[in-house]
Amino acid sequence: MDVAMINDEMLPLSELSAPYLDRGIFFGDGVYEVIRSYDGRIFAFEEHMARFERSLNEIRMSNVDIVRVRQKVLDAFEKSGYANAKIYFHITRGSEPRDHMPGKTLKPNFFLTLSELHNNPEIKQKGVAVSTHPDWRWKRCDIKSLNLLPNVLARIEVAKKGASEAILVGDDGMITEGAGSAFFAIDGKENTVITRPLGHEILPSITRAMIFQVAQNAGLSITERTLTPQQAAHCDELFLAVTTKDVVPVTYFNGEAIGSGKCGELTGRLIEEFKDFARS
Amino acid sequence: MDVAMINDEMLPLSELSAPYLDRGIFFGDGVYEVIRSYDGRIFAFEEHMARFERSLNEIRMSNVDIVRVRQKVLDAFEKSGYANAKIYFHITRGSEPRDHMPGKTLKPNFFLTLSELHNNPEIKQKGVAVSTHPDWRWKRCDIKSLNLLPNVLARIEVAKKGASEAILVGDDGMITEGAGSAFFAIDGKENTVITRPLGHEILPSITRAMIFQVAQNAGLSITERTLTPQQAAHCDELFLAVTTKDVVPVTYFNGEAIGSGKCGELTGRLIEEFKDFARS
Repeated sequence: MDVAMINDEMLPLSELSAPYLDRGIFFGDGVYEVIRSYDGRIFAFEEHMARFERSLNEIRMSNVDIVRVRQKVLDAFEKSGYANAKIYFHITRGSEPRDHMPGKTLKPNFFLTLSELHNNPEIKQKGVAVSTHPDWRWKRCDIKSLNLLPNVLARIEVAKKGASEAILVGDDGMITEGAGSAFFAIDGKENTVITRPLGHEILPSITRAMIFQVAQNAGLSITERTLTPQQAAHCDELFLAVTTKDVVPVTYFNGEAIGSGKCGELTGRLIEEFKDFARS
Repeated sequence: MDVAMINDEMLPLSELSAPYLDRGIFFGDGVYEVIRSYDGRIFAFEEHMARFERSLNEIRMSNVDIVRVRQKVLDAFEKSGYANAKIYFHITRGSEPRDHMPGKTLKPNFFLTLSELHNNPEIKQKGVAVSTHPDWRWKRCDIKSLNLLPNVLARIEVAKKGASEAILVGDDGMITEGAGSAFFAIDGKENTVITRPLGHEILPSITRAMIFQVAQNAGLSITERTLTPQQAAHCDELFLAVTTKDVVPVTYFNGEAIGSGKCGELTGRLIEEFKDFARS
């Protein structure tokens, strides 16, 4: 007979339930989003939903009702009652016995978790330590997919050096982005925020797009160009952008202090401007 | 309250069971194997278990008891009663709320399915059609991980052209391997089987290693070198190697017939030799 095993339990293959046959686990065959709310309002909701729809298109999933997904997110948010919520959701191509080629009658699986976000003012002052790691990811990092093992491995490696984020470096020696964040440098003399141009090598980060507006409010220009780790280490200030924490100062880069080893002045200004922007 | 949604059902986050919180689905944070038996004996069992152990090491999972995994595979095989079985199993880093950085007390999840394999003599005569597709995979394809979305996408794309396997082509214009198979060419004049040397760009296929021995039995030498699609299209014969089907003739390559458009003479010889070898 056809057999399955889940940890130590043996059972007939026919008794496996849908989550065990999810193409999300066999192949990472799905896409996701992480959204947050500030003070009772979901931030950049349209932008996140537009990116999610694009990701679905890029992995050739045309059978998802995006209006219903939208409503589910809103329903969960309302149900939670949280003012500051972190909302994660993914859609996979569906559940079926494992085969690279998806079946024609597959039904997508939707999955969401929602939990409360708490402010972490300390991280905004002390910042975080980051270390570089080779970028081992695939060639379509612009798709927010469930294939994240290289990101996980990079985090595990840099954690051994006391870093909480890995800054990924491509074969050409240029920084792409963080394993779970967008990466920015500040040139204080030029009053400009430097970040990599969009392309297949990085995620089109929503927080990145928001920072373009916030920087303008803070009187800083934007320069889209690539940086080597050496160039980044010599910039006046560095920071990360991530949905759940918005602007996070980088105070140590490959073990060396950036500036005074505390949140820089211009990064501080961006943090304040972002606060206003997110709640406006 | 913390909320979760599974398709249309809303529930408290705390009620989510382990399969929904598997790092395998969030990140593809796991590794797998596919093994088969011939006539009641598992084929190349030691080789597959050694590769599995290597994959675990490469993703920094040191808390798996490989002797127990081995026993589970044998138990499932015995329970099934099948002479010709296909055994799939994976281990993920465990289940916990989603965070790139794995928790310190995580327990690995083991999962296995076993079903009967049936001979498909037609495929050995008619062969399969393949088409090339850019290789979008990550830089550690030597690790047999659950990050397989690029493989799935390549299969979906070439299926539109009537091909059942995608032959992946790197940025350098050279063929790496099939989306789910190793790729071989035969130079009839030189009496040699050509395949790409091992490296981070391809899986160390067990069937590939077996073919090295089978080719010798068939009086053919092995040449390890890379090929462009153009070079492959001009070879006398082409074939794939895959655990569940061993040697599969490629009779159409990017829409053009290879040789007579049927299984070539030397590939046929390899198929026969493999039969003997797998049952010896």
